[in-house]
Amino acid sequence: MTYSDEIQLSTKGFCDVHNITDEVQDIVSKSGIKEGIVCVSCVGSTVGITTLEYEPNLVQDFCELMENLIPHNKPTRHGNTWGDDNGFSHLRSALIGTSASFPVSGGRLVLGTWQQIVFCDFDNRERTRKIYVKVVGEKRE
Amino acid sequence: MTYSDEIQLSTKGFCDVHNITDEVQDIVSKSGIKEGIVCVSCVGSTVGITTLEYEPNLVQDFCELMENLIPHNKPTRHGNTWGDDNGFSHLRSALIGTSASFPVSGGRLVLGTWQQIVFCDFDNRERTRKIYVKVVGEKRE
Amino acid sequence: MTYSDEIQLSTKGFCDVHNITDEVQDIVSKSGIKEGIVCVSCVGSTVGITTLEYEPNLVQDFCELMENLIPHNKPTRHGNTWGDDNGFSHLRSALIGTSASFPVSGGRLVLGTWQQIVFCDFDNRERTRKIYVKVVGEKRE
Repeated sequence: MTYSDEIQLSTKGFCDVHNITDEVQDIVSKSGIKEGIVCVSCVGSTVGITTLEYEPNLVQDFCELMENLIPHNKPTRHGNTWGDDNGFSHLRSALIGTSASFPVSGGRLVLGTWQQIVFCDFDNRERTRKIYVKVVGEKRE
Repeated sequence: MTYSDEIQLSTKGFCDVHNITDEVQDIVSKSGIKEGIVCVSCVGSTVGITTLEYEPNLVQDFCELMENLIPHNKPTRHGNTWGDDNGFSHLRSALIGTSASFPVSGGRLVLGTWQQIVFCDFDNRERTRKIYVKVVGEKRE
Repeated sequence: MTYSDEIQLSTKGFCDVHNITDEVQDIVSKSGIKEGIVCVSCVGSTVGITTLEYEPNLVQDFCELMENLIPHNKPTRHGNTWGDDNGFSHLRSALIGTSASFPVSGGRLVLGTWQQIVFCDFDNRERTRKIYVKVVGEKRE
């Protein structure tokens, strides 16, 4: 069987990192699915989904890494052409990926204590975002 | 239920980026599966699957990013040992990943308007590539 | 139907890369599932799952790439705050990702000859690791 729901977020952009683990777990719980896979996917081309120990220092380290690998002020052909100056956001998104899948066991996400599912908004402005969560599996324990 | 099919591509290598969104959607449509997950996976160790707004400027920006992070002319132990000079292709593949999964809802891939599924050939020569698409889910709306 | 099992590994840290393809295939075989998706996911926030041609030169190239992109001796806020000096391990994990999914066809992982599923321990010490493997699909050929 399958189940799905959405998470909505208001984001500030410029590497705005949100811990969405509880929201994903809530959807898994509501699904009634005990054993399966959950696919967490964000609609958009300037966003990322990954895992991170969600504590403010590491979040800042992560954003600094993104800045080192893909500086926000380095000109891109995309930014120059379309005038929206967010080429860097698209590149960070392609590098990190916009979806990730995790096992569900006994009705719980299989994650470590310090391992949170995070949504990253890499865009250069405020946005409202939708994260689509799809659970596939079975109800038996 | 499950359904699968393959996409075949002739590629030029050296960061040859193809938009495969329509082909993946076609397979999802043929599957008859309305709710589920689709796993898009490329056979090979010098390839990548990610999402990108597929427009030529951004594709060039993406290839320039790959060149900055993993230059094609920086010697690698792998290239030196095997003489095929494509160590950089393998490294780009390991960084981007060779598979990605996306939700299917109402028989449609859940993606943004500017978010395309792209296949990247990072190898240093022409290839024929197979992308394997597997849909898992159910037929009910 | 679904099936799951765990792989346990003793690791040395500092970019310790293990080929887990055979172990994942064994679990797929034991599952009896012929067509579906397998999700390979590691519990932890200083680990990575990706694919790589598993040969020692390329493994060294990959670890050198990680060192170039995210040096182990560059101070991080996380390391400075918590005193465990493994901020770089967390960042590598967020970049590579802790899970990956692959198609299963005819009871076999769909992978290339030179494409292995690898587990990377990026932490700065020895660990015992659990990799969770979940197969979702059906038994019919």
